[in-house]
Amino acid sequence: MKFDLIAFDGDDTLWHNEILYAEAQDKLKELLSSYADGETVAQRLYQTEMSNLQYYGYGIKSFTLSMIQTAVELTRGKIQAAEILQIIGFAKEMLTSEVQLVEHAAETIRELAKSYELMMITKGDLLDQQSKLSRSGLGDSFRYVEVVSQKTQRTYETLLAKYRIEPQRFLMVGNSLKSDILPVLALGGYAVYIPYHIIWAHETVDSQHVGHDRFYELEHLGQLPPLIEHLVVSL
Amino acid sequence: MKFDLIAFDGDDTLWHNEILYAEAQDKLKELLSSYADGETVAQRLYQTEMSNLQYYGYGIKSFTLSMIQTAVELTRGKIQAAEILQIIGFAKEMLTSEVQLVEHAAETIRELAKSYELMMITKGDLLDQQSKLSRSGLGDSFRYVEVVSQKTQRTYETLLAKYRIEPQRFLMVGNSLKSDILPVLALGGYAVYIPYHIIWAHETVDSQHVGHDRFYELEHLGQLPPLIEHLVVSL
Repeated sequence: MKFDLIAFDGDDTLWHNEILYAEAQDKLKELLSSYADGETVAQRLYQTEMSNLQYYGYGIKSFTLSMIQTAVELTRGKIQAAEILQIIGFAKEMLTSEVQLVEHAAETIRELAKSYELMMITKGDLLDQQSKLSRSGLGDSFRYVEVVSQKTQRTYETLLAKYRIEPQRFLMVGNSLKSDILPVLALGGYAVYIPYHIIWAHETVDSQHVGHDRFYELEHLGQLPPLIEHLVVSL
Repeated sequence: MKFDLIAFDGDDTLWHNEILYAEAQDKLKELLSSYADGETVAQRLYQTEMSNLQYYGYGIKSFTLSMIQTAVELTRGKIQAAEILQIIGFAKEMLTSEVQLVEHAAETIRELAKSYELMMITKGDLLDQQSKLSRSGLGDSFRYVEVVSQKTQRTYETLLAKYRIEPQRFLMVGNSLKSDILPVLALGGYAVYIPYHIIWAHETVDSQHVGHDRFYELEHLGQLPPLIEHLVVSL
């Protein structure tokens, strides 16, 4: 059986992303080091992000607004305006930093694009994700790009209906069990999990709970084309 | 001829939006009144928004980051952190404010949804636009929602190709000549322009330049269903 559509998550599946957030957070810790220790900064930032998620959604702009709020609250208003401008500077660096592909991403995507329709399905800021795809050099290999505000079973259901794709002919590849894998399996699709070495706490799900005959776990993207070839002949 | 798809802009076409930005800007002017006069605040904010557009794109979060940057720069760093928090508060108010439909929006959309597939095509923050559509009570009437980072001829071309819609069977309704009308006409589609009483400077195009046999201008949404009925029998 050949898949009608193979979809990829972007952040930390095709290119390194969480590292940008980790670096910005380190800079924030440094900036606030005379007010609070690093652990406190990290905790308060995470709490602020979580309580703002309902307003802002995902992405760098949301993260930046949460960094600013955390900085003001943690310093009890003592932070200087010039330092707030530095935080905005962190955001602009994140938004324009070079896109670093994960290993094997370039050749895997180019190879699969020859035989399959590829889609990118990603959360975050619309413009930022489109810009990253374009800067990554992989843009031409993706027939479709969908930036979504969350990745639930309903999200995938709506997308597949829109493109008139049967779930059992759909394969999703990503690094988040919660967002890329479990909802796709629940819908009847195939899912390939490629863990990334940093995971944002919010995306954590225990992988022990995934035991499924349409679930595959790989160490890196280079193993994907042979797996797909195997599935195509064996399913 | 019946249209295969009728699409609507959201902000200031279906619901009032620019007024939220104008109100937030007034609050910023008030907040900065001891540092600069209102006109200067408005000018600097607009310049900051324009130079940030390439990084942030459209929407409330982008606007908020630009408000914060303007406040820090205009006060030469004298603004207090607590005041920055107030600016973040403006954003949260904007993001959760009641969605005010423009006149005739509710009945027009419900009526057209009985006979046509309706789509919303809008710029801005993904989550915010989805949330507004949901809060508007019109969500169920729209078969498709597309949040895009810009509305160029290429944007519409890509969307119509994706949904396999011929441009000459497509009608777009909106309040921006630049974003909703001219690119659709250029592509061979039909466009209905319904001006809004406030227009963001960035969206301004001289409407004198539009003389076109697939272009229609209406005063309000209530006039849309009779126009479409007329087009369907006469084209």
